[in-house]
Amino acid sequence: MRNTLATIDGLEPRTAQLVARRQQVLGPSYRLFYEKPIELVKANGVYLYDRDGTEYLDAYNNVPCVGHCHPHVTAAVAQQVQVLNTNTRYLAEPIVGYAERLLATHSSALGHVMFTCTGSEAIDLALRISRYFTGGSGLVVTANAYHGITTAAAEISPSLGPRVPLGTHVRTVALPEATGDDVRAVGTAFASTVAAAIADLERHGIPFCAFVADSVFSSDGLRPDPPGFLQPVVDVVRRAGGLYVADEVQAGFGRTGGVMWGYQRHDVVPDIVAMGKPMGNGMPIAGIATRPELLEKFGADVRYFNTFGGNSVCIAAAAAVLEVLEEEHLVEHARAIGGHLRDSLTAMTAGHPSVKEVRGAGLYLAVEVVRPDTKEPDARAAARLVNGLRARRVLISATGPSANVLKVRPPLPFSQADADRFIGAFGDALAELEV
Amino acid sequence: MRNTLATIDGLEPRTAQLVARRQQVLGPSYRLFYEKPIELVKANGVYLYDRDGTEYLDAYNNVPCVGHCHPHVTAAVAQQVQVLNTNTRYLAEPIVGYAERLLATHSSALGHVMFTCTGSEAIDLALRISRYFTGGSGLVVTANAYHGITTAAAEISPSLGPRVPLGTHVRTVALPEATGDDVRAVGTAFASTVAAAIADLERHGIPFCAFVADSVFSSDGLRPDPPGFLQPVVDVVRRAGGLYVADEVQAGFGRTGGVMWGYQRHDVVPDIVAMGKPMGNGMPIAGIATRPELLEKFGADVRYFNTFGGNSVCIAAAAAVLEVLEEEHLVEHARAIGGHLRDSLTAMTAGHPSVKEVRGAGLYLAVEVVRPDTKEPDARAAARLVNGLRARRVLISATGPSANVLKVRPPLPFSQADADRFIGAFGDALAELEV
Repeated sequence: MRNTLATIDGLEPRTAQLVARRQQVLGPSYRLFYEKPIELVKANGVYLYDRDGTEYLDAYNNVPCVGHCHPHVTAAVAQQVQVLNTNTRYLAEPIVGYAERLLATHSSALGHVMFTCTGSEAIDLALRISRYFTGGSGLVVTANAYHGITTAAAEISPSLGPRVPLGTHVRTVALPEATGDDVRAVGTAFASTVAAAIADLERHGIPFCAFVADSVFSSDGLRPDPPGFLQPVVDVVRRAGGLYVADEVQAGFGRTGGVMWGYQRHDVVPDIVAMGKPMGNGMPIAGIATRPELLEKFGADVRYFNTFGGNSVCIAAAAAVLEVLEEEHLVEHARAIGGHLRDSLTAMTAGHPSVKEVRGAGLYLAVEVVRPDTKEPDARAAARLVNGLRARRVLISATGPSANVLKVRPPLPFSQADADRFIGAFGDALAELEV
Repeated sequence: MRNTLATIDGLEPRTAQLVARRQQVLGPSYRLFYEKPIELVKANGVYLYDRDGTEYLDAYNNVPCVGHCHPHVTAAVAQQVQVLNTNTRYLAEPIVGYAERLLATHSSALGHVMFTCTGSEAIDLALRISRYFTGGSGLVVTANAYHGITTAAAEISPSLGPRVPLGTHVRTVALPEATGDDVRAVGTAFASTVAAAIADLERHGIPFCAFVADSVFSSDGLRPDPPGFLQPVVDVVRRAGGLYVADEVQAGFGRTGGVMWGYQRHDVVPDIVAMGKPMGNGMPIAGIATRPELLEKFGADVRYFNTFGGNSVCIAAAAAVLEVLEEEHLVEHARAIGGHLRDSLTAMTAGHPSVKEVRGAGLYLAVEVVRPDTKEPDARAAARLVNGLRARRVLISATGPSANVLKVRPPLPFSQADADRFIGAFGDALAELEV
């Protein structure tokens, strides 16, 4: 999926030159999307534009959740940045008003919010609070989880690969193979896997602290269904004296359609929720919502001040995002248009030898690509589809333990026409795959 | 310095109500400056304004380094947010151009830059890279260091207090008692302390990884002098096979006057530099500059993607900051006006029984407050001075292991008139102390 040094050769001179300059100063940690990277200069709604004015349909970016450069959000940022941008050690009404509105979208058990700048910082803070509250350190995560890039978040992110070792206090659990319709069977199977992991931690003298889970299991290949299967898992976690930390960086803010938060699809109540990416439509704001009880001692004992966390400008952006989500009914829209897109993709790929399954929730859809013969994961075919769509000016990416799961995750104001344009391009790219 | 629940009683009803609402949703981790917190609604240059239109002279905030709401920076943000705000997986010229300009301010040995959103994330990333490169884990920091709030950064931040345990792989070193004029004596003394800490790590089977130091030792009470005293320390660190990580979150971007970076005052070259707070004048951008060699393996092996790190809008802000620093000659200005302020403070407090020392570099000054009789640190008197200045509409804070060191650290465009206004108010607050 990601461009490397080797590809410079095939690029046009202007692009090659910029890629070379970039590698010179940013170094080898930086990757680019697509075999032919895109130089973006403009964006609007669900459309991106390169230097030549070519338009791309964005079916990938969840960060600009209400659409790229939404005028209500950009106006809020432009206005606020010219008036005041400061930190939380001064009193200000907007952050309080926003916190109240944000908490109103959550379960009433979650009474406090704390602001950070990134989802990684939110997860890292959730871990610090969880450890302080429980006195334990043992963590259970899913087999290909991704929770962030701080040292502590990377230690619970097996998807980062073998060169990023998991913490010795971390156990991983595989999701049930079949996430079918029988919610009770799926949930019970998963719960017993989690129970075994907790038992293994305790057997090693590592007191259990928390179960941390992306509410849609994105990097595990997207496993949102059946709704409710997390209930028995949460029961097991609570009975073991642990906390349930919901990572809503991917699922949150209406992405899964019909509900604001992924955990609400499972009808469970987390102890801590980590929020991120779409929160400020691209402005760096993230945070946690938590049961107040968890902060009583932590808040009194531990100094935690995040300089940019909850700054005036990012709060203005985040407040505007909530307003747009509501005014444009985007959470309901994600359900409706996501359903249409899913049905269309399912119909189009039915019986196709390279497509094992179309799944997802709301505007977060996955297409699992396999080898026609063995039905094993096919990362190469997935990459061909991603680059084939890019050639058709439609942008997606791939994910999953074997990088064979296409990730379709557009900004929420994706219209019926956008969905149909996507389906058309997808059909063409799929046809090309067979050649 | 920080307001707590108890103070609500003394506040006017409007403020008390907002404080109560705030505590209800943000919880006990959030603190407010001053016995009577300030509700800010507007800021400009070095002036802050509350809801009643009262003007405050800002002699504290280093984040808005080129001045609150500087028009060049706010225009850059307002313009960029309406055109494009996306991530580093797409190609874009501005981030490359900014990285080139930023690296040009550093030692030529530092060839790569990586962007994060906060100084904590920058330190955390520096630690990950250092560990990966050296294979060691042992870290040496100063006795009251503060390096951030992620789990890994908090583990090397003794200033967070006993409830935030240091990592078992961390050793602390006291700064030399007298940081006088004899650079050789101070440097040698400090170097031998650091050497002993490294030896202790190795004796415990913990291979040495890095020495991490704030270039002005802010939370240790501000110890910038004598320039050059870090040289023998860096030699010791290198001989032991470790890396020297310069935390420039406080000292960077011209704060110390005359030079862009605090390490340049010591004429040493770090292996990694962490940058933060003033980088985007309040927009969340931070990062590291590093020797390319350190990223060769890390960059190839470890996936590191910071969603908001280096986003289009924050890069626009950061580029504008560099431009203003240069066009308004603020680095040189910080040296000149900081010298004036320091001389005035020194003259005013000479022989004062409550003031032990005025020290600092550029526009980062410290006034050490002690008990007139025992000359021991006097946090109460320091707090009285901070609140006394706040009553005179001049804002500072206090720091240091004993919270008795006044921290004078205004936005860089602090004028001669501002400095004189500060001196006047300071004299009055000091006189009040004696009452």
